This record gives sequence, C-alpha cells and structure tokens, in this order.
Amino acid sequence: MAGAPAAAPPHAVIVGAGFGGLNAAKALGKAPVRVTLLDRRNHHVFQPLLYQVATAGLSPGEIAYPIRAIVRRQRNTEVWLAEATAIDLDHRRVVLADGALDYDFLILAAGARHSYFGHPEWEPIAPGLKDVEDALDIRRRILLAFERAEREPDADRRRAELTFAIVGGGPTGVELAGAIADIARRVLAKDFRAIDPREARILLLEGGPRLLPAFPPRLSAKAETMLRQLGVEVRTNALVTALSADSLAIGGQTFNAATILWAAGVTASPLARSLGVPLDHAGRVPVQPDLSLPGHPEVFVLGDLATLRDARGHFLPGLAPVAIQQGRAAAANILRSLRGQPRRDFHYRDKGNLATIGRARAVADIAGLQLSGPLAWLVWIFVHILYLIGFRNRLLVATEWSWDYLSFQQAARLITGRIHWTAKGGA
Amino acid sequence: MAGAPAAAPPHAVIVGAGFGGLNAAKALGKAPVRVTLLDRRNHHVFQPLLYQVATAGLSPGEIAYPIRAIVRRQRNTEVWLAEATAIDLDHRRVVLADGALDYDFLILAAGARHSYFGHPEWEPIAPGLKDVEDALDIRRRILLAFERAEREPDADRRRAELTFAIVGGGPTGVELAGAIADIARRVLAKDFRAIDPREARILLLEGGPRLLPAFPPRLSAKAETMLRQLGVEVRTNALVTALSADSLAIGGQTFNAATILWAAGVTASPLARSLGVPLDHAGRVPVQPDLSLPGHPEVFVLGDLATLRDARGHFLPGLAPVAIQQGRAAAANILRSLRGQPRRDFHYRDKGNLATIGRARAVADIAGLQLSGPLAWLVWIFVHILYLIGFRNRLLVATEWSWDYLSFQQAARLITGRIHWTAKGGA
Repeated sequence: MAGAPAAAPPHAVIVGAGFGGLNAAKALGKAPVRVTLLDRRNHHVFQPLLYQVATAGLSPGEIAYPIRAIVRRQRNTEVWLAEATAIDLDHRRVVLADGALDYDFLILAAGARHSYFGHPEWEPIAPGLKDVEDALDIRRRILLAFERAEREPDADRRRAELTFAIVGGGPTGVELAGAIADIARRVLAKDFRAIDPREARILLLEGGPRLLPAFPPRLSAKAETMLRQLGVEVRTNALVTALSADSLAIGGQTFNAATILWAAGVTASPLARSLGVPLDHAGRVPVQPDLSLPGHPEVFVLGDLATLRDARGHFLPGLAPVAIQQGRAAAANILRSLRGQPRRDFHYRDKGNLATIGRARAVADIAGLQLSGPLAWLVWIFVHILYLIGFRNRLLVATEWSWDYLSFQQAARLITGRIHWTAKGGA
Repeated sequence: MAGAPAAAPPHAVIVGAGFGGLNAAKALGKAPVRVTLLDRRNHHVFQPLLYQVATAGLSPGEIAYPIRAIVRRQRNTEVWLAEATAIDLDHRRVVLADGALDYDFLILAAGARHSYFGHPEWEPIAPGLKDVEDALDIRRRILLAFERAEREPDADRRRAELTFAIVGGGPTGVELAGAIADIARRVLAKDFRAIDPREARILLLEGGPRLLPAFPPRLSAKAETMLRQLGVEVRTNALVTALSADSLAIGGQTFNAATILWAAGVTASPLARSLGVPLDHAGRVPVQPDLSLPGHPEVFVLGDLATLRDARGHFLPGLAPVAIQQGRAAAANILRSLRGQPRRDFHYRDKGNLATIGRARAVADIAGLQLSGPLAWLVWIFVHILYLIGFRNRLLVATEWSWDYLSFQQAARLITGRIHWTAKGGA
C-alpha cells in the first residue's frame, strides 16, 4: 500500500463504531490488515431501541455494548476512544482532538446528527435522539414535566407542562409519540395525586402530507389511526415556524408545550466537510458505486454519512440495514483490492421497514407483505431481539419486555443527573 | 394535632426516601394521616449495591426504583420531587428550594454525604459513593483510566493511569477494591492491546489498624487475605495527608494514582444544622430513645442523620437495617401518639454484617456465625436479592449476576456523559 512500509500489514482505520463501522471491523477481523476502530464513545448503541431508553422502557446498558468487548477476539483490531476532528486526504491521516492517526485504508462511518433547518438555536429547546445522552436527556424532560405538573397550581401552566410536542413523523417521531402516550395512559396513571397523567396531550407534527413517508401509504394511514386510538393528535403538512422554551408555532397557530422533541431531520457528521468534496443538501458525501470517495479509492464513506442511489435511481434510506450491508461491502472491497481483484458495486438488499406504535402494535412492510397491529408487533420484537448484540442484552431486554407487558409497568423511569432547582424544572 | 384543622387528618411529612424514609412511609400507608414523601430524586436507591454500578457490574435501573411506583397504592401518600433546604421547627414548616410545606409530624431521614475531614477541596479529586450520579462518575473514571493508559506512550504515566487508590477500609472501600481488582484481572484482561489490565495497581488505604472495623477481628483478617489474593495492596494505619489530581500522600510516602476514590467518612445532611440543636462530630442529631428530637415530640430524626446509643451504650452503625427499623419505629410512635398511647423506645435488632470481596467471596457476621469465602458470598447474594425492591429488579439483577458469573463478563461497563477531550481524559 502506498505509504505503508512493505513489511507491515496495511493499516485500515475505521471512524465510528455504529452499525456501519462495527460491521466493517468485524468483516476485517481475519484479514491481513491492521485495524484501528475509532469512536467517541466506548460503546456501540443499538439505535433502533434508543426511543425506549428515552421513554423509560429500557436502560442504556441493555441496548449499548462495550466496543472492546465486541472485537476482543480480533487480534488484528485495536479500539481507540478518540474523537476524529478532520480527515487529511493528502497525507492519509485522521486528525484527532488529541493526536493523529495515519491510514492506508479509511472507512468513514461517523453517522449523522439532527438538523434544525437553519435554526441551531432550537437544539437546546427541542433535543433529538441520536445517542445514550440524548435518550437520558429526553427521558429526564418527559418525567420532570409530569413532576412539575403535579406541583403546579395554575391550570393553564399545568396543561402546558402536560403537553408534549414531537416534531417529525418518521419512525422515531411515531415511536416516541406512541411510547409517551403509553406511559402517560398506562404506566404513570396511578403514580400521581394532583394530576391525571392520562390527560397528557401528545402532538405529533409532520411537515409532509403523511406519517412514515418511507412506508406504503396504506401503512402510513394505519399508523395514524393507531396513534389516534392512543390519544395522539397527529397533524400533517404542519411545518414548525417558531420554537420557544415552552411553545411552538405552526404557521399562525401556537401550542403551549413544555416538552418539545425533535425527530425531523438529520445532517451528516461535520467530518464530511473536512474532506473538501461537494456534499449534498444534508451534508452527505456522494460516493462511487463501490462506496469509495471519487478520486480516493483508499477511502470509503458509508451509512448516514454517505449518499448513493440504488439501481432504480432512488437514494438509499438512512437505516441500520443499509449501514450494516455497506460496512461489510466496504470491507470486502478492501480485501479485493489487497488481492488485486476488481471491486464490486454495492447493492442494497431491502429487508423491509418496521415501526412500533405504542404497546403491542406496529406496522411492518416486509418482503412485499404489509402488516399492521399485534402481528407486526411480534415481528418487530423478534427482529429487534435477534439483532441486539450479545446474548446478555437479548436476555435482559426480553426480560424487561415480558415484565412490562405483563405488569403494565415500566420501571426504568429514573431521572438521572443532578436536578437544578433554580432552572425550570431542571430540564 | 396543633396547627391542623380539626377535620383534616394530621399531615406527616417525610424528608428523604432512602431506607428510613421509605419504610416510614410504607408503615403509614393505612394510617389516618396525610403523608407527603419528599426526595431530591424520583427514585429510591438500593445503596448496598451502588458499588456494583460504580464497577460496571449493574445498571442504575437495576438497583433504583421510582418512588411513586413504590407507594402508588397508598392513597393517603403524596410524593414530591423537591429539595428541603431548612426546617423551621417553630412554625412546623419544611423550607424547600422552591416553596414550603407545613407539617404536623416530621420524619427527617435525609441521610449523609461523604466527609473529607476538613478538606472539601478533595471532593472533586476523590469522589465518594452515595447516589447513582456518584456511581456513574466513578465508573466513568475507572474505565477512562484504562482507555487513557491504552493510548499513553510514557511508561510512568501509564503506570499512574493504571493505579487506583481507595481511601477507607470499611465495607464500601473493601467492596470497591475487590470489584476493581476483579474487572481489571478478569473482565478487561482481553479488551486491550497496548496494556495488560492485569497490571493495574489497586491500593486500599485504611486509617485505622484493620479493615472492616465493624466486623470481628477474625473476619477483618480474612477480608485482608482475600483482597491480597486478588492483588489488592492493603495498607492499614495509613492516613492520607495530601491529595492532588493524580497523586496521594501518606505521611512521607507519595503514590501516583490517576484514580482516587473516597470511602473514608460520612457527614450528616446539612439539613441537620438548620435544626439549631447541638450535633455530634459527624453532624448527626442526638435523638431521644423514641427517635424524636429533644423538646419536639412531633419531629423524628433517623438513619444516617441521627445518632443514638443501643442498650449496651454503643452507638448504632450507619447501616441500612438500622434505618429500615428506625423508619418503622418512628411511624409506629406517630400512630401511638394519635391513639393517645405512650411511645416505645427504639431497640435495634442486629441482623449482622456482610461484605463481598471480589467475585465469589465475602465475609459474613450473622447470628453469631462468622463466615468467609464462597459460603458467605452465597448468603450475601441471597440477602441482597431478597431485599431488592420489586420482582423486576430481583429478576434483572439475578440475570446479570448469573451471566457475569458464567461468562466472566461484565457488560454494564458503559461510559456515559459527554467526554471533554481537552480535560484530562474528560473525567
């Protein structure tokens, strides 16, 4: 490899241990390369279940797994807890917040954060859901809102404390809205004396014409019906025009809501900008069919950080299965290059789409089948337990879910982090 | 009750939902009183297992339980998430950070924090272990030390990163030292490439002549032997004379340790000072045999906040069983007063003493029996699962422990909270 001493095996650096980076690392586990897997966190997070941590259904330890433990048996793999701040393509170097790392091959899988459509000032008001800290922050805001309402003498302010607005009607927004409606109506119902949590108002605001745009219209309609049955107010074609700490405006209409959650849009990691290549509107890197960076065959970009069209010319969605398959494909193409074989283009095998709606309901668009209700929910449970990393996590999550289902309880509803009594409820 | 309208039932306010306050609240569940249970947190913590959260054996959600969920069926009981800042004995009022609450009966069970023997500047350097936030902070420091060591080129600094000093040889110090030795030698051994976690140096420093002073000397010796077998360096008569961010001095001797944990002493909640009564050296409130405040029969003080001698003239220890029994006794005395019956003096039924030493070992001083080793450990497991609140938590903890024991893994080793790359390891 250019830049690599003849003797030493080439050095493959992977930035990000999400679904893409982790699967690339695993695929390189027995390869004749030295692998360094970088992440800002010491754990991999199973993002599809983050919303359950945010809504007190699960504990972080049940959906997160130490990265070192996952690759501990790969002798060729090192794990670095480090933050990549820039990529120096010319010198084949990853610049870190506290150092630098040279590479022969680079796999960029740093993912995305939420996007506030040019309103960065909205982020502290309306947090999004991307990592464990986000989830615990959202859990804290939801539970503290009920606590504040319990002690609020003024009826209007109490109403505002019990109003939860979720911006964005994709899977995350739908799952958050359903889960909040659930804990308000089932879990917390008996916990309070001054308020009735069942009176909580949950608004789900979607800018487009329908919920779950990635699903078939029929399932979007099903999801909306199921959410309404849970008491969620669904509004489509509802674009947020203004946000304050306790209110939100849609066009002329204003809603008082003490808790506002953001599930509306994502933007790629700022790392993409450091590449100096043209990016798409969401800050993603357009990649070659083999997932490499144009003009840089030694650099691969994947997952939420990359943008690529499938055979039918549609852009690939920002879903876990895409990242997982791309991670494996990038690793395979590195091995092909090492063997002097031609690379292969990436083809996404669409395994379908799933989203839960509260307790015991879901919509599923799988292998041409469109399911909704309890059956789809069973499929959802099966798939998610199956994909969780580690027998321990599967066992714990299965235990929690059985317990929650049978007891109508959700005991993970802990508020952690010091509470600041001067601040508004300390949220 | 004086101050209470004739019609309304008397108002019993309980400050603190630890072992003492929670058991008082439960004992008043069917009583003809209105109960308000105040706590700064929304959850009760099973403190005897906090050290396992700190050493990545358990998740917070497995040893903490929402207070509202515990008393949800007590229709006479309200839960307030609030911080009591002072007690106004004359006006029978609890002053809150954000309001006030009048009482007819008051049960003060606000517990204790750690004491740094007149060195408050040591607290940020050497955190103690009292709540979930403390435990997650300590876990974070321990795991980040290994992460920093893995990337530290300088041998001396690496040695310091891998040195853990625990100040205080009581149960908490002994259990922390044993658990850290365990994860270093068993759990993390295969996780790193540049360092060998088994080389971690664990120092346990006790100011007195022996570990576990509350145990019989024979068991103190056993505990020390078992700790040495785990590779822990035990030093008795070792008084800390100076502390810095990465070193600690005992008399003339200096140790370089990047992680210093404090398990040396406790001081009662500052709430005690607001009573305006004489306190003991640890800031505790001397109480009457019926647990009431001298001159204030309507006020009870218990648990770590109170000091009382038993029949033999010994001071009662700051243990969970003492607080639990005192909580029930205070509630019973309130009921007696309401019925016009004479109050009873509190008598502590000593159920014995337990402490674990790493994996599969413990010392137990129970019912005249002095046990050590695996048998004591089985007793310890049985007792702790038994006393955990809620079937769910028992189930989850039993699952985790079985898994850890069979797999030699401990997957709860997550570093949570944003990492600040500029700060030393972000700890």
